[in-house]
Amino acid sequence: MAHLLSTSCSLKITSCRKPYSKQLNESSNAFPAYFSLKITKDLYCPFGSLVVQRGKQQRICTVRATTLPVDQEAPTQPGSGFHQNSNGPSPPKRVMVIGGDGYCGWATALHLSNKNYEVAIVDNLVRRLFDHQLGLDSLTPISSIHNRIRRWKSLTGKSIQLYIGDICDFEFLSESFKSFEPDAVVHFGEQRSAPYSMIDRSRAVFTQHNNVIGTLNVLFAIKEFREQCHLVKLGTMGEYGTPNIDIEEGYITITHNGRTDTLPYPKQASSFYHLSKVHDSNNIAFTCKAWGIRATDLNQGVVYGVRTDETEMHEELCNRFDYDGVFGTALNRFCVQAAVGHPLTVYGKGGQTRGYLDIRDTVQCVELAIANPAQRGEFRVFNQFTEQFSVNDLATLVTKAGKKLGLDVQTISVPNPRVEAEEHYYNAKHTKLIELGLKPHLLSDSLLDSLLNFAIKFKDRVDTKQIMPSVSWRKIGAKPKTVSA
Amino acid sequence: MAHLLSTSCSLKITSCRKPYSKQLNESSNAFPAYFSLKITKDLYCPFGSLVVQRGKQQRICTVRATTLPVDQEAPTQPGSGFHQNSNGPSPPKRVMVIGGDGYCGWATALHLSNKNYEVAIVDNLVRRLFDHQLGLDSLTPISSIHNRIRRWKSLTGKSIQLYIGDICDFEFLSESFKSFEPDAVVHFGEQRSAPYSMIDRSRAVFTQHNNVIGTLNVLFAIKEFREQCHLVKLGTMGEYGTPNIDIEEGYITITHNGRTDTLPYPKQASSFYHLSKVHDSNNIAFTCKAWGIRATDLNQGVVYGVRTDETEMHEELCNRFDYDGVFGTALNRFCVQAAVGHPLTVYGKGGQTRGYLDIRDTVQCVELAIANPAQRGEFRVFNQFTEQFSVNDLATLVTKAGKKLGLDVQTISVPNPRVEAEEHYYNAKHTKLIELGLKPHLLSDSLLDSLLNFAIKFKDRVDTKQIMPSVSWRKIGAKPKTVSA
Repeated sequence: MAHLLSTSCSLKITSCRKPYSKQLNESSNAFPAYFSLKITKDLYCPFGSLVVQRGKQQRICTVRATTLPVDQEAPTQPGSGFHQNSNGPSPPKRVMVIGGDGYCGWATALHLSNKNYEVAIVDNLVRRLFDHQLGLDSLTPISSIHNRIRRWKSLTGKSIQLYIGDICDFEFLSESFKSFEPDAVVHFGEQRSAPYSMIDRSRAVFTQHNNVIGTLNVLFAIKEFREQCHLVKLGTMGEYGTPNIDIEEGYITITHNGRTDTLPYPKQASSFYHLSKVHDSNNIAFTCKAWGIRATDLNQGVVYGVRTDETEMHEELCNRFDYDGVFGTALNRFCVQAAVGHPLTVYGKGGQTRGYLDIRDTVQCVELAIANPAQRGEFRVFNQFTEQFSVNDLATLVTKAGKKLGLDVQTISVPNPRVEAEEHYYNAKHTKLIELGLKPHLLSDSLLDSLLNFAIKFKDRVDTKQIMPSVSWRKIGAKPKTVSA
Repeated sequence: MAHLLSTSCSLKITSCRKPYSKQLNESSNAFPAYFSLKITKDLYCPFGSLVVQRGKQQRICTVRATTLPVDQEAPTQPGSGFHQNSNGPSPPKRVMVIGGDGYCGWATALHLSNKNYEVAIVDNLVRRLFDHQLGLDSLTPISSIHNRIRRWKSLTGKSIQLYIGDICDFEFLSESFKSFEPDAVVHFGEQRSAPYSMIDRSRAVFTQHNNVIGTLNVLFAIKEFREQCHLVKLGTMGEYGTPNIDIEEGYITITHNGRTDTLPYPKQASSFYHLSKVHDSNNIAFTCKAWGIRATDLNQGVVYGVRTDETEMHEELCNRFDYDGVFGTALNRFCVQAAVGHPLTVYGKGGQTRGYLDIRDTVQCVELAIANPAQRGEFRVFNQFTEQFSVNDLATLVTKAGKKLGLDVQTISVPNPRVEAEEHYYNAKHTKLIELGLKPHLLSDSLLDSLLNFAIKFKDRVDTKQIMPSVSWRKIGAKPKTVSA
């Protein structure tokens, strides 16, 4: 055991079936006596083998060293030891956050780690590549994922495992699943920008391929390796579009020609990105029925804000904050515009009404979904937002808040690059997460401290060229689009 | 011109804008006098250039030689000459049949050619590869696509152009579009078997990737190169599932909490294949709205039969006829089973009710859709079937018809490999194609001549090992499945 304990990598036996699986690390004093270990490959090789003996039985096990060198001993967390192979559901402890380096994913990974979940981030970091390729950057300076995780460990003693790779690569995803053995998977790992999906044909195709195939792979991984695992999937309120009737949470009871049924709520998505989420929802619903997958689809509204309790702990934990025309959400963009004296850019008439939520509520909602898992075979849909605003409402709120800070905020209407109704009925239900205990942060309380002051603090980093919409729903073509310097 | 006319390939100027585009072939005596042509590349090179001069104007045009050597002079068809660049809609003449080598596609291509449409088949022939890989074969012997087209030409004098390639390859699809300039695209070019999509993870992923991305590419090709072109897309009645209310044609008017809207009919597909069609429908609906694409979604029922007026003309034109557990549709399979003395295999309770149609009605419906195109921006949905039957109904009908032919037909129930309701309400509307003029062939009239007698004729070709279901909706796994010899 001596040379095992001397390594600086966290190690894990992956191909053994329960109850042999065990997280091994430097401080692994709980390692059971009936295991003897023989190292058959160099420990720094990411995939090696361990021979595990129990009495006369011997198994060859694959060893996976995570790519993250840990700089401190891992604490022994309650419930983080052997998995019990009980038949009843045990409280979820091990959460895989796919897309955990992104805006919502990073905040969620930290929040869950802080709440004593064992967290693994799975991410191919492609969101950072998009910024490079499009010449964009987060308003806030963000650290590498490696530094983020090291800093979190040094501040809190809590380890976050890291699996860097693409979930469209099923071999990679399989190894991650077999290695980490998640009780819940939170799936943020998708291309998440509507304008990005409308840049050109190749981005439209990438978005649908990446999102649909990645999610299919996650479903197969759950079926194959962790059939009790709860899938918490990020959908979007944009799946519903803007129907002229109330939007329900996932399902609607319809009486038609004297008969009644409760059916999936009709979807009317309005970008290749939003459509990819509709495709996901349909695929997941089928696997719940056919395979007994347990899934929660979080149809999230537009997220705003940058601060969460955890990201505030250190500047290296700071979350990204997008204000550009491709990845920036409306309210984040307005606050940056107010801070730098750029008029707020209302698309078209500004009557477009959507659900909004603070990123502190995103992490709260995900935690609630994990703590209250769906049943086997259940496809549960929550509408995840706290308040409805029109774009004009947002402009008015930012103008007023700016005034308190001495900012002279102007608003202009710019031609709407999207194809969408600019004046419409909108009333979407969102009670299920409240019933589970969600305590919303309201925009009126967050606007100054989590948004405008942040935008002002970093206003020297603003690239005003990125603010205006550059992508047109109607002008998208087959020709690849590049950004000039 | 002399050396042009001496070639045995049909040639076409592709990159020129109207009115310069023109089909050139050996008999092209209608070639306009004000063109002078200079060949700048070898004519047998599939992509060359032509310099087209009109007065002092000169254009360099790409030349594409089709892969099909034509063995006779092409007839000059009415309306097949220059495209008029009129602003009003002109009657559709040039129809691209994607998937034109398949079961429905081949029958449709011939039917449209017979009706004096100019037809091009686009196909990667992968359906034939599936048979090789799974050890399956059509009951009927089928000729190569090249021989099929040559035979059609020799019998009727009518040319069908052939573009062999994968529509997921946008460069290939672009060239096909620019070369052929379709007025309508009939899109059969998808993996079309539910069991195939449920064999293993890789086939599930293939099915959704192939179908969704292929259709996205078709939409982009229409937008980019032929924006007036009418997309006639094959969907499936299986998109709707089996709701407990009447199934409408694509849309349903819902009154909810005192408000009313007409929304897309809720979908509940029950295989990765059926889901891929739902994804397509959603994608197409969006592009109709955002780009003004004109589209008709034909939600087709289960097709049966092998004969159409055109395929009957010669054995080399014979259509494929699948009876195996992967590609065989229920009624085709039952007839083969009756012919060889194999019990009819009813899955589960046999109460599964679906819409059915004769392949002679498939080709009729497609022709009606083409002749009555959707408006710009319209996403039109037709339910394409003529009669409803339960699986038990079909077994009873085949048993009775078999008796007339002296066959002793038994029926057995086999465990249902699918996840589906086996007793349910089913009432699906299908009036829109009738209103356009569809004259249905009814099963009672077709069962003996187009099905049972055919099955008996070819019964020596039946491989009884292929009859039983081999694919399980519940047991599908991530591990690739191969078929042993």
